[in-house]
Amino acid sequence: MYIPTYEDMLAAHERIQPHIRRTPVRTSAYLNELTGAELFFKCENFQEPGAFKVRGASNAVFGLDEAQAAKGVATHSSGNHASCLSYAAMLRGIPCNVVMPRTAPQAKKDTVRRYGGRITECEPSTSSREESFAKVQAETGGDFVHPYNDHRVIAGQGTCAKEFVEQTDGLDMVVAPIGGGGMISGTCLTLSTLAPETQVIAAEPEQADDAYRSFKAGYIIADDAPKTIADGLLVPLKELTWHFVSNHVSAIYTASDAEIIDAMKLIWKHLRIVMEPSSAVPLATILKNKDAFAGKRVGLIVTGGNVDLDKLPWMNS
Amino acid sequence: MYIPTYEDMLAAHERIQPHIRRTPVRTSAYLNELTGAELFFKCENFQEPGAFKVRGASNAVFGLDEAQAAKGVATHSSGNHASCLSYAAMLRGIPCNVVMPRTAPQAKKDTVRRYGGRITECEPSTSSREESFAKVQAETGGDFVHPYNDHRVIAGQGTCAKEFVEQTDGLDMVVAPIGGGGMISGTCLTLSTLAPETQVIAAEPEQADDAYRSFKAGYIIADDAPKTIADGLLVPLKELTWHFVSNHVSAIYTASDAEIIDAMKLIWKHLRIVMEPSSAVPLATILKNKDAFAGKRVGLIVTGGNVDLDKLPWMNS
Repeated sequence: MYIPTYEDMLAAHERIQPHIRRTPVRTSAYLNELTGAELFFKCENFQEPGAFKVRGASNAVFGLDEAQAAKGVATHSSGNHASCLSYAAMLRGIPCNVVMPRTAPQAKKDTVRRYGGRITECEPSTSSREESFAKVQAETGGDFVHPYNDHRVIAGQGTCAKEFVEQTDGLDMVVAPIGGGGMISGTCLTLSTLAPETQVIAAEPEQADDAYRSFKAGYIIADDAPKTIADGLLVPLKELTWHFVSNHVSAIYTASDAEIIDAMKLIWKHLRIVMEPSSAVPLATILKNKDAFAGKRVGLIVTGGNVDLDKLPWMNS
Repeated sequence: MYIPTYEDMLAAHERIQPHIRRTPVRTSAYLNELTGAELFFKCENFQEPGAFKVRGASNAVFGLDEAQAAKGVATHSSGNHASCLSYAAMLRGIPCNVVMPRTAPQAKKDTVRRYGGRITECEPSTSSREESFAKVQAETGGDFVHPYNDHRVIAGQGTCAKEFVEQTDGLDMVVAPIGGGGMISGTCLTLSTLAPETQVIAAEPEQADDAYRSFKAGYIIADDAPKTIADGLLVPLKELTWHFVSNHVSAIYTASDAEIIDAMKLIWKHLRIVMEPSSAVPLATILKNKDAFAGKRVGLIVTGGNVDLDKLPWMNS
């Protein structure tokens, strides 16, 4: 297992800068007042394909040598990683094969196809996915880019924290959502060298709190079919992300789905940005644990902005 | 009638800069592809109170001498002007009195009160509003800040176009929504000196197309009770805004409510920002008149971001 280094992150930033956005940092006097902290929101939802995952995906895609690039990349994902990898592959002009459950939302499939990704549908089970993916990879020779358990991906995600530090003039804490742990790991990677005094805090849905329980237990615990409105955070930690979580994360806080939806509405209303339920978990945990954040300069990573506007979580409720 | 000058606009920018945000300009590769133009969106929805109107309001408020400031300001409005004037008055620490119809949405009243504005309710008729306002003004001595027919307000709104030019390195056209014409007038004021080669184009709802008809007729025509989803654009032109519209605007385009809602969803989805129906009219008119914009560098002013998230125009439809 190769652990990516600070230098890998610097090289990643150099490599991907022409292909990603240096996303803005937004603030709200109202949300500062409400939380008693000074909040800085890093808007990764403003990446062209709408998620921070374009950083890691671009680092993998643009780091391939020409021979491998000709065969392209491959992954299995039904979320932002699939569309961001397709987007990066489109920018480089190489093939991208994605295995997706046939039950994935049509909008997700449409986005992957819009970016030129080739979808192979599988049944919504682990065995079907693995079988389909092995076949696709054998046929295409595409380089497997895992959504988070990949050192190139983690080095790429770490570039977000580098920009965040440059844009904010010092933060006491950075809070990011945790699912598989790719963004949190990249954040730990960067801050442990660049700003070791800045704490990294993970925010997780109560109804998918495997990282929280792993953190307490001291080893990886995977959830059995978690279910939460924060559908970007359903996947478990893997060895590479567990390395960073267990060594560098200061705390993991959780919030209920109702609290996540409330926080999401607050951000839509007062920052006036469109973001996913998953990206609202940091604010939800801050509102729930105000004492831990009071008076601090707190960075929040708004991880993504791909939502179905016709099915917002507060509709019909 | 005093016509504000370019120097008034420069003085306004100097005066209000500490109190407003230099809002960012956003782009979307997808929307460029869709329209065939290069679009730049100036995000005035990102002002703290959520609308460009904080510019004109701040210019009026911070330009008062101490004696008048002690008596504060007053206006009648049920929209963004009321909350932005309250916000600016709060920043200076002076009273703000607002006459609002008792039928105005509770959320609008709450916002004005959150910023310390004092609301006097009137019946939803012109006579009741005028009577109530005269009374409030007589009692408080508050300086009347009209939502748009005021040279200080127009000079303030013009600061948006100044930033836009500085941020974009040249635009062929700027498209802004037109209601009373405050933003359009400020844009004309600034661009006619700073970038006279840049056309100013107004975008208006078909169902409240009084500016379009006035523009064609050559004199002000007021609508009889217009009704459109773009509820920030219901008010008619007045002499001061008509001066700028009739002298400097290159064209007025209109769009239907259905087209406005479609454009609003496109912006929410691809720029991932929360903005009002009124602010979607420019994109709606561009999509409807693609030939007029093809290949051009087009600036769009996203005028405001205050919407009721529980009553989005595409809900229950």
